[in-house]
Amino acid sequence: MSDSRQGLDLQRIFSPQSVAVIGATTRPESVGRAVFGNVLHYDYTGVVYPVNPKARSIMGVRAYASVLEIPDPVDLAVIIVPSGGVAQVLEECGRKGIKGAIVITAGFKELGGEGVGKEAAVLAAARQSGIPLLGPNCLGIINTDPQVSLNASFSRLMPQPGNIALVSQSGAVGVAALEYAQAERIGLSKFVSVGNKADLNETDFLAYLLDDPQTDVILLYLEDLATPQKFCQLAQASGQRKPILAIKSGRTAAGAQAASSHTGALAGSDAAYDALFAQCGVFRVESLEELFDYAAALATQPLPQGNRTAIVTNAGGLGIMATDAAVRYGLTMAGFQEETTQRLRESLPAAANIHNPVDVLGDANAARYAAALEGVLADPGVDGAIVISTPQLMTNLKEIAAEVTRVAEQHQKPTLVCQMALGEIEETLTILTQGHLPHYHFPEETARALAAMARFARSRRRPRYEVKTFTDVDRPAVQKVINGAKTAGRQFVLEPEAHQIFQAYGFPVLPHRWVHSAADAVRAAEELGFPVALKIVSPDIVHKFEVGGVKVSLHNGAEMSRAYGELLAGVAQARPQAALAGALVQKMAAPGTEMILGMTRDPHFGPLLMIGLGGTLVEIFQDVAFCVAPISEQWAHKMIRELKAFPLLQGFRGEPPADLESIAQCLERLSQLVLDFPEIRELDINPLIVFAQGAAVVDARIFVD
Amino acid sequence: MSDSRQGLDLQRIFSPQSVAVIGATTRPESVGRAVFGNVLHYDYTGVVYPVNPKARSIMGVRAYASVLEIPDPVDLAVIIVPSGGVAQVLEECGRKGIKGAIVITAGFKELGGEGVGKEAAVLAAARQSGIPLLGPNCLGIINTDPQVSLNASFSRLMPQPGNIALVSQSGAVGVAALEYAQAERIGLSKFVSVGNKADLNETDFLAYLLDDPQTDVILLYLEDLATPQKFCQLAQASGQRKPILAIKSGRTAAGAQAASSHTGALAGSDAAYDALFAQCGVFRVESLEELFDYAAALATQPLPQGNRTAIVTNAGGLGIMATDAAVRYGLTMAGFQEETTQRLRESLPAAANIHNPVDVLGDANAARYAAALEGVLADPGVDGAIVISTPQLMTNLKEIAAEVTRVAEQHQKPTLVCQMALGEIEETLTILTQGHLPHYHFPEETARALAAMARFARSRRRPRYEVKTFTDVDRPAVQKVINGAKTAGRQFVLEPEAHQIFQAYGFPVLPHRWVHSAADAVRAAEELGFPVALKIVSPDIVHKFEVGGVKVSLHNGAEMSRAYGELLAGVAQARPQAALAGALVQKMAAPGTEMILGMTRDPHFGPLLMIGLGGTLVEIFQDVAFCVAPISEQWAHKMIRELKAFPLLQGFRGEPPADLESIAQCLERLSQLVLDFPEIRELDINPLIVFAQGAAVVDARIFVD
Repeated sequence: MSDSRQGLDLQRIFSPQSVAVIGATTRPESVGRAVFGNVLHYDYTGVVYPVNPKARSIMGVRAYASVLEIPDPVDLAVIIVPSGGVAQVLEECGRKGIKGAIVITAGFKELGGEGVGKEAAVLAAARQSGIPLLGPNCLGIINTDPQVSLNASFSRLMPQPGNIALVSQSGAVGVAALEYAQAERIGLSKFVSVGNKADLNETDFLAYLLDDPQTDVILLYLEDLATPQKFCQLAQASGQRKPILAIKSGRTAAGAQAASSHTGALAGSDAAYDALFAQCGVFRVESLEELFDYAAALATQPLPQGNRTAIVTNAGGLGIMATDAAVRYGLTMAGFQEETTQRLRESLPAAANIHNPVDVLGDANAARYAAALEGVLADPGVDGAIVISTPQLMTNLKEIAAEVTRVAEQHQKPTLVCQMALGEIEETLTILTQGHLPHYHFPEETARALAAMARFARSRRRPRYEVKTFTDVDRPAVQKVINGAKTAGRQFVLEPEAHQIFQAYGFPVLPHRWVHSAADAVRAAEELGFPVALKIVSPDIVHKFEVGGVKVSLHNGAEMSRAYGELLAGVAQARPQAALAGALVQKMAAPGTEMILGMTRDPHFGPLLMIGLGGTLVEIFQDVAFCVAPISEQWAHKMIRELKAFPLLQGFRGEPPADLESIAQCLERLSQLVLDFPEIRELDINPLIVFAQGAAVVDARIFVD
Repeated sequence: MSDSRQGLDLQRIFSPQSVAVIGATTRPESVGRAVFGNVLHYDYTGVVYPVNPKARSIMGVRAYASVLEIPDPVDLAVIIVPSGGVAQVLEECGRKGIKGAIVITAGFKELGGEGVGKEAAVLAAARQSGIPLLGPNCLGIINTDPQVSLNASFSRLMPQPGNIALVSQSGAVGVAALEYAQAERIGLSKFVSVGNKADLNETDFLAYLLDDPQTDVILLYLEDLATPQKFCQLAQASGQRKPILAIKSGRTAAGAQAASSHTGALAGSDAAYDALFAQCGVFRVESLEELFDYAAALATQPLPQGNRTAIVTNAGGLGIMATDAAVRYGLTMAGFQEETTQRLRESLPAAANIHNPVDVLGDANAARYAAALEGVLADPGVDGAIVISTPQLMTNLKEIAAEVTRVAEQHQKPTLVCQMALGEIEETLTILTQGHLPHYHFPEETARALAAMARFARSRRRPRYEVKTFTDVDRPAVQKVINGAKTAGRQFVLEPEAHQIFQAYGFPVLPHRWVHSAADAVRAAEELGFPVALKIVSPDIVHKFEVGGVKVSLHNGAEMSRAYGELLAGVAQARPQAALAGALVQKMAAPGTEMILGMTRDPHFGPLLMIGLGGTLVEIFQDVAFCVAPISEQWAHKMIRELKAFPLLQGFRGEPPADLESIAQCLERLSQLVLDFPEIRELDINPLIVFAQGAAVVDARIFVD
């Protein structure tokens, strides 16, 4: 839907003055009863009208045979009638002047077959009536804002108000998430189940929630993205002022297959999702636990300025486990200033460990915890703290929780609590919840949550990236080559043509000549200067190495003459039918580090750029990085640094460092090239040889549509 | 302690006929009160005697001034008197004929300083009296066997009886574990807090628990191993008939250790723990959650025959998440037989997904779950099942739990339940617990637990490994070289001597000669056959490459003569003070794959063997595998296969495969060599070049003590 409609439309869905529940019923265990009951019983501040042609009233509320009979204006329709009747109802809603619709009814695209057509009809009816549509096949929405207090869903639960919003592509995952949030005492601002996303999708809701004053953290459960590029632009433009965390399921091939049979979603490549989320600052997680663990911390605590973590514990063993986990998740253990150590020494018993992790001992009372936490949080070398308390003989968890809350409030540093007790801790958790301190069951998950905060803080500190546009490019030259290939009926360009394309876009290509005889080849080599390589050029041969179509390290005219003859003879034998188009004479590159650059075009995401180190070992280690075009200079450098073999490029064991600027620029120019020419379907440069200064495109393939 | 004492001793500690609680008191919040109260109030089937010189009775039970005044025989003493009085009490226990003691009192070795001496005195008193001692500084023990029902600890909880035993080196971690087990309804057979391990340690308790008929799964929380080699032998000898799971904390602290030599730098003692646990079949985990998640499954369900997993869910989204997690943790998604698909098609509604993951839909009742689970468990292509149920509108979780339990019982395949509801599920969990079905909160942890079972089953199916002893070795020759180095006051052997050692132990060494003049060098090269390498030999030079002490690829006598001169001149310039001992002429190795073999001697574990691929990239990727000597042939092959670069050895991209037998045999011979000669402190072969047939030790360093 268009950007201009968004704000208003979703306001009518989340905060309507009046709601019609069409298909409301009193039939036990029905969705129609559950939805109407939820609107009615959770203190909705507007007016709700049940619509049911067969009932005088529903749960004591005057019912209407159709929306058209409701005497007052209606903002929102929640529709639970059988799938065959939905389009008709939407048409009536249009006539009634209704401003938004939630279609909860299932039996559409997710069934395939007839369902696809039914969904198209529903969407057409909504569009015709100008009604933005949530669903079909969804759980509904919840707005906990006390000004509205609307539960227009068939969830069994009404979440506590809070500052975390949840958008779920699966109703059941949504339900599970609501259950979990309630058990963990985590409040929500809004909940949306997006269902089949016939009209409104996650991008629309993301836009709304980024502006929603009740929402500070946005959680997404996704099986696909309806509009990945728009989603990415929106997330990026938000400058990460609100953390966005997403589960994107279907990560593994098996999972993706499962996803495509669910909700009818077509999964894109998982590497593309990874790249896209990373680029637009969305934090991808794997499980509901992670989602809420991180959200609870991000929603309540200040962001850490760095990774330096202090641990305060009343059990040495748990301190060690927390330390292990902290380091594993990328935090560092803070080293305390002498002043802090001195302070801890004075306020803790002699047997306590005054170094990090601070062990306040099994008999620690609240005052001892307070002293230790005060000490470490006051240390300028500490960015965040983990407080672990486990019930020992004299442990008063409630008092400790109160003191920890009091001390944490006085510092602008994140403090996370690991409460390793499971019985009789209701009051303790209430103290922590009211004090806005996130609490966890295990040292490991506590450390993981703090590490996630540090990662988010780091990514938010990154400057905004601007994508550069190179002006020293020759678009017509590239267009001409591509048109030529198309005219010739080829799906790829010849190698000399590929070098023309790269040259036109400012890539460092090696000096080369396209020749058609041995004599030309010798002359070209003399002009270029030996040593040179010689490669067959043929519209019928893509993989020239496989047919013996490449000769390297030719040092003089005699070698070249002989090589030319052998090349033709070899190819004639291997591929007697192949038409030949001469050969490419190319100056040999100096020694350097071999890299691979590539692009594949994802139907969903557009061009996906890839970089990796060349060579056999790297192939085994699968050491590559991806991003979605366009790419900024900073992101290009980030991709290069992400390679596991990056130390090799930095100058390993006395080798000179590789020219990282040149690699980054090749990535940026590649990004521009493939965005400028959608006809380029797939491309790889293998190898790009990188030197201490500069680089060279040695071999390349470009496929066109 | 000696093996013969073990069984009986620990029987007196876990199942005593009578217990004296020395230091029992009624003082509120005291350990002495907590311990005595626990023995008294949890239905101990024997007799308990409080010992307190100042009290007539404790909690209504007749007290004694000392154990010597107790009129009846006493099996076990639980001691909570102040640390200074423990030795004296133990001496009295000895006179009383007591057979086991638990010293709960803290204030010993853990404090350092005086505490160390106090602990030594306590141990001496226990030894003198012939009393096996648990502690000091521990929480105590619990035996839930209804025949005994002894809680001789100051834990707040008495676990439910079960078939899982827990041994914890940290009291607080033990308490946290007991809390967690109770919350998750997991029963325990025995609990032991080993404290400072002055006498009895985890190996003693492992021995006891392996024979304990009440225990089927053994859990360990360790901060170190007191007797690693004995522990390993015991675990190995058990043939994994009972799963042993261990947390070993302090993983990362060890990683931070810097070491001087190459092999040392890559090792670190945590790698030794990893290697040791893997070799003896102990399953290392990282968190208490994992520990109990896996234990709950292993304690109740049959082991899977393979990785092929079926998922049954009433929510598509959760099915996808479970599929992702299953694949991530190494399971595979089962493909159903046509018969199964047909059966599911007949018993499930048309909208259901009858392929894996099976979606029984949101409105599924218990019968539908039963039909689906019956269908997939009956499929011979399914090794285990995950059943997910999340509360939707008409979901009756209790009925589903009952039906799932009934169906699962009829099949010898593991079935794990993911119950994604958190409110009002007490009865449901009771049904699952009584039906011995392990249950989890999230798809991810369910899949992880099933994957852990599959991993354990796989490791248990491995044949027992026998360590080979090579008889074609010449021990005196090696001893002579080592003695020579010692006599000369050297901490390392010269390179020609290293090759003598390797030759004596049957390693494939290259033909070589130790020469002392250019003329000799030329003659030697001619005898060996060109090309050859020339290396300086000096008792003052360990790193000969760094001083220009190596010339390679010498093709004829002239080159050799020149090289000899240059070698001497270069070394004289770089290290003018170095004494020279001639040079080594060595035949050049044919091209092949470069590997590294190494050994460092861990003070705790003995020799730690390492293998990795040579070269720069492998160093960057840290692609090495470790094991503790001795090593069997099968384990040597397992180490080689564990290398990430293993595909390279298998013959990557048309290269011939490397001779894996030769590599394995080098590892086995290395194991024997370093066990035969404890004087070898550190050793590395870098590179070992491996060919399609055979291998060659090219360069090596051996350090001796």
